[in-house]
Amino acid sequence: MKKLINDPDDVVDEMLEGMVAAYPDRLRRLPDTQVLVRGDVPVGGKVALVTGGGSGHEPTHAGYIGDGMLDGAAAGGVFSSPTADEFEALIDACDAGDGVLAIIKNYEGDVMNFETAIELAEMEGVEVDSVVVDDDVAVEDSLYTSGRRGVCGTILVHKAAGAKAAEGYDLSEVTRVAQKVIDNVGTMGTALTSCVTPEKGEPTFDLGDDEIELGIGIHGEPGTERTETMSADAVTDKLTEAVLDDLDLDSGQEILTIVNGMGGTPQMELFVVNRRLQELLGEHGLETWDAWVGDYMTSLDMAGASITVCAVDDELKELLGAPADTPALTQTQ
Amino acid sequence: MKKLINDPDDVVDEMLEGMVAAYPDRLRRLPDTQVLVRGDVPVGGKVALVTGGGSGHEPTHAGYIGDGMLDGAAAGGVFSSPTADEFEALIDACDAGDGVLAIIKNYEGDVMNFETAIELAEMEGVEVDSVVVDDDVAVEDSLYTSGRRGVCGTILVHKAAGAKAAEGYDLSEVTRVAQKVIDNVGTMGTALTSCVTPEKGEPTFDLGDDEIELGIGIHGEPGTERTETMSADAVTDKLTEAVLDDLDLDSGQEILTIVNGMGGTPQMELFVVNRRLQELLGEHGLETWDAWVGDYMTSLDMAGASITVCAVDDELKELLGAPADTPALTQTQ
Repeated sequence: MKKLINDPDDVVDEMLEGMVAAYPDRLRRLPDTQVLVRGDVPVGGKVALVTGGGSGHEPTHAGYIGDGMLDGAAAGGVFSSPTADEFEALIDACDAGDGVLAIIKNYEGDVMNFETAIELAEMEGVEVDSVVVDDDVAVEDSLYTSGRRGVCGTILVHKAAGAKAAEGYDLSEVTRVAQKVIDNVGTMGTALTSCVTPEKGEPTFDLGDDEIELGIGIHGEPGTERTETMSADAVTDKLTEAVLDDLDLDSGQEILTIVNGMGGTPQMELFVVNRRLQELLGEHGLETWDAWVGDYMTSLDMAGASITVCAVDDELKELLGAPADTPALTQTQ
Repeated sequence: MKKLINDPDDVVDEMLEGMVAAYPDRLRRLPDTQVLVRGDVPVGGKVALVTGGGSGHEPTHAGYIGDGMLDGAAAGGVFSSPTADEFEALIDACDAGDGVLAIIKNYEGDVMNFETAIELAEMEGVEVDSVVVDDDVAVEDSLYTSGRRGVCGTILVHKAAGAKAAEGYDLSEVTRVAQKVIDNVGTMGTALTSCVTPEKGEPTFDLGDDEIELGIGIHGEPGTERTETMSADAVTDKLTEAVLDDLDLDSGQEILTIVNGMGGTPQMELFVVNRRLQELLGEHGLETWDAWVGDYMTSLDMAGASITVCAVDDELKELLGAPADTPALTQTQ
């Protein structure tokens, strides 16, 4: 499988160099780490937001570093967790004395290493809260995961908590809105093709020419069902109904939706999915307040998409709609 | 080849519906056409900017409709030109009496149909200028093209001319800066895999497992050279040197660069390319003023990338850096 890379062992290192080369005024790499932070950390007068996890999900995580979202992110190897040392360096660099919120996707390595880092940081007197995102409604427990997996809904946690922090609220308030998003969001994805990791150079899993996987994880972990290829409308219905079953929303509820590309999916197809998604939500009596379409949390070169639905109230609408200025997400008001 | 579509005959229509469903406040579809325009056209007090071409290059074209960029865009079938009638409807809808600039990528069908539409509009008293973008340095003449092809540099024409129009300058000034970008920009791309059109469902061209195509067109048209797979750095050097040979810039020249994904390329790989690109430009004594990395002009699900270099002076820096607010490109100042 062909890739635009050099030595697979260098791919994360070179990607991070390429990110800093693209955004030298916005991103800074902590020496001898795979941690990227805002150029101006620590940013005084606000809670710092940090996250991280395996590489291969770009623009997650570093693409969301900047005004109104994250202060920094630790990048692990491809699909593998950053070390506790890297997470600790991240927390230390970003803390300005107003506390730190760690946003963790629910994978065992991320949770374990972030928790160790938090303990170490707290011993040094840093105030740290954490939330664990587990928005994937497809499966309970999975490869790498106890409980549900954290996937594309994580972006909305960055966005809402980032806006709350930018407004100067304290750590307990920033943590509260992060958890509020987690309590109100659900996601499910599908794969048309497997991802191919640089190291292996072969598909992570086998999928026939006439098969798709429903409920796929962002590392190619098994989903809920392998079926014959279906129309975009049928796939959209399957994913959306599973998410809505989980969220159990009342008719008239306002929502934000994301149609997220997995990395190898043309935008054309994402918009075809969005067409049916919005139609179906209307049939359920739900009111789309905002609709995002694009590549937000990918799985290398996987072809496929995920659908995220987040119930919003006035508070979340204000935060999710607030200005942000990051490499991957810029919003004006 | 699997795709998230329904009937291939409906894919453009359903994509456009999905776009309007995502951005109902920003985009409006002209009845009985495949033309999308700003929700508030005609926008008084400014020159209108219009473009269009075959579908399959998303977010080109409609993704750049909005404040500081385009007023509207006509979408043809996949990789086929919009009709003269559609281009005329686009011009008519966007003209507010201050004139219209048509930004045309250099493909025979686009040029012919846009020119016919412009003649018809002028007969109705609309003042229309046009520019033809031909930034692809790879080949003279090609399938669909006399002269060079128009590719990713087109986005910079939209951006600079859009900013000039937003500042209230007249048609001759808006046209001048559009042409100034064209005179200062070059692009070259590579394909690791063929694109697959919805209609055909098979690769447009054959490329071996250990081959790549240099100088590829955005419809899969042949490039300059088919070679064995190379490292990202070697590919970057090949593409960049060809662009720099064409532009013939002086040492110390300020430039804007784009590393553009072709649709099926993970962001990880684009940043690996950007790393070497910026290193190489430094070796040439060129000064990168701004670096864009992402999917700006794609070729459906093609894996590959293109590199664009645009020489900038104070005027172009002001325009290319000006605020914009569109689905695919948002800049704050």
